Amino acid sequence: MKIAILLYEDVTALDAVGPYEVLSRLPGAEVVFAGREKGTVRTDTGALGLAVDATLAEVGEADIVLVPGGAGTRPLLGDEEVLDWLRAIDPVTKWTTSVCTGSLILAAAGLLEGRRATSHWIWREYLSAFGAEPVAERVVVDGKYVSAAGVSSGIDMALELARREAGDEIAQAIQLGIEYDPEPPFDAGSPEKADAAIVELVRERAQSDPALQIEAPTP
Amino acid sequence: MKIAILLYEDVTALDAVGPYEVLSRLPGAEVVFAGREKGTVRTDTGALGLAVDATLAEVGEADIVLVPGGAGTRPLLGDEEVLDWLRAIDPVTKWTTSVCTGSLILAAAGLLEGRRATSHWIWREYLSAFGAEPVAERVVVDGKYVSAAGVSSGIDMALELARREAGDEIAQAIQLGIEYDPEPPFDAGSPEKADAAIVELVRERAQSDPALQIEAPTP
Repeated sequence: MKIAILLYEDVTALDAVGPYEVLSRLPGAEVVFAGREKGTVRTDTGALGLAVDATLAEVGEADIVLVPGGAGTRPLLGDEEVLDWLRAIDPVTKWTTSVCTGSLILAAAGLLEGRRATSHWIWREYLSAFGAEPVAERVVVDGKYVSAAGVSSGIDMALELARREAGDEIAQAIQLGIEYDPEPPFDAGSPEKADAAIVELVRERAQSDPALQIEAPTP
Repeated sequence: MKIAILLYEDVTALDAVGPYEVLSRLPGAEVVFAGREKGTVRTDTGALGLAVDATLAEVGEADIVLVPGGAGTRPLLGDEEVLDWLRAIDPVTKWTTSVCTGSLILAAAGLLEGRRATSHWIWREYLSAFGAEPVAERVVVDGKYVSAAGVSSGIDMALELARREAGDEIAQAIQLGIEYDPEPPFDAGSPEKADAAIVELVRERAQSDPALQIEAPTP
């Protein structure tokens, strides 16, 4: 099973690495990190470099394509090289997937037209500007298109993909192998659960950051 | 707040990236990924390259030091360059921390002598061979030494560190920012919760993998 994970400048590391850690443990998994150019991209904090091992042109097929999110999704919404790659590879995937604002890229490529999808809670509604139907769920499966909510949700999505591809036992073995038995110190991980003041704090900070603004097509 | 994360060949990516994604969002956070040599290390699957931006010699102080785990912890248990770096930086840290088998490295450096600590459930008992007291909890705090269980538990540990360093509100804002509201498809993330057959499957595979064997000091 070939798994292609898109990397680009200003990606959010956990969006890519969470699912990678799960999917790379599938029997026969071959994971490749692909991007516009080989070399190193820096994540959105600038603090971490991730290696791009293959160019997009070198990755013509994959069973699973995964598009992570991050501040760097914004310029990709109009990047025809990346969008064309997604359009070209999608017909041969078993699963075309995204984490966080990665779903906006899939939607900008036209792949989520009329489909249910999710994204980071702050940016989820923008999906409709790109023709998809925003859904407030952590993992949304619509046919072969699977999207996850913000950042950490890619781990849950990948376990769901593992279950569908390899069955309950192997998915559970992977979950146990990465000891995914979450115990966050607070129950504040979604806007429905966090205090309203914290939700506003996080939303305002994101919405006032120029690097995070999304240019949606005018209807 | 300066955060130094150790990288090395055959590290488990999520051990490092989970906590990074949380800690890098602390106000004033400066994260540096450090290793023996600048360049790229490959993770334990071989599928991902992570950039080492600073040599150990260049990182003489940090508020938080984090040692991730992975197959590559084994050679480090006798690597005096790495162990000496940990011994030298530890006196100036506020928190000396580990994820997964990273705690074995801290213990091998002599930093967990007589202290409570945890590790990946398969390898946790080896802590006692290095003078620490193994504890079956997801996050263990003993003074300034904080250890997390397997792989994904570093996210929980980092949120606990965020809480202690920056308070409840900021820790909750970080949790909401990364939308950490886990929904794994199974409740199989710890050996107490998974089916016994799955526990044995995962344990046997790990214990029969030559790359994962641990050479503990003879008592």
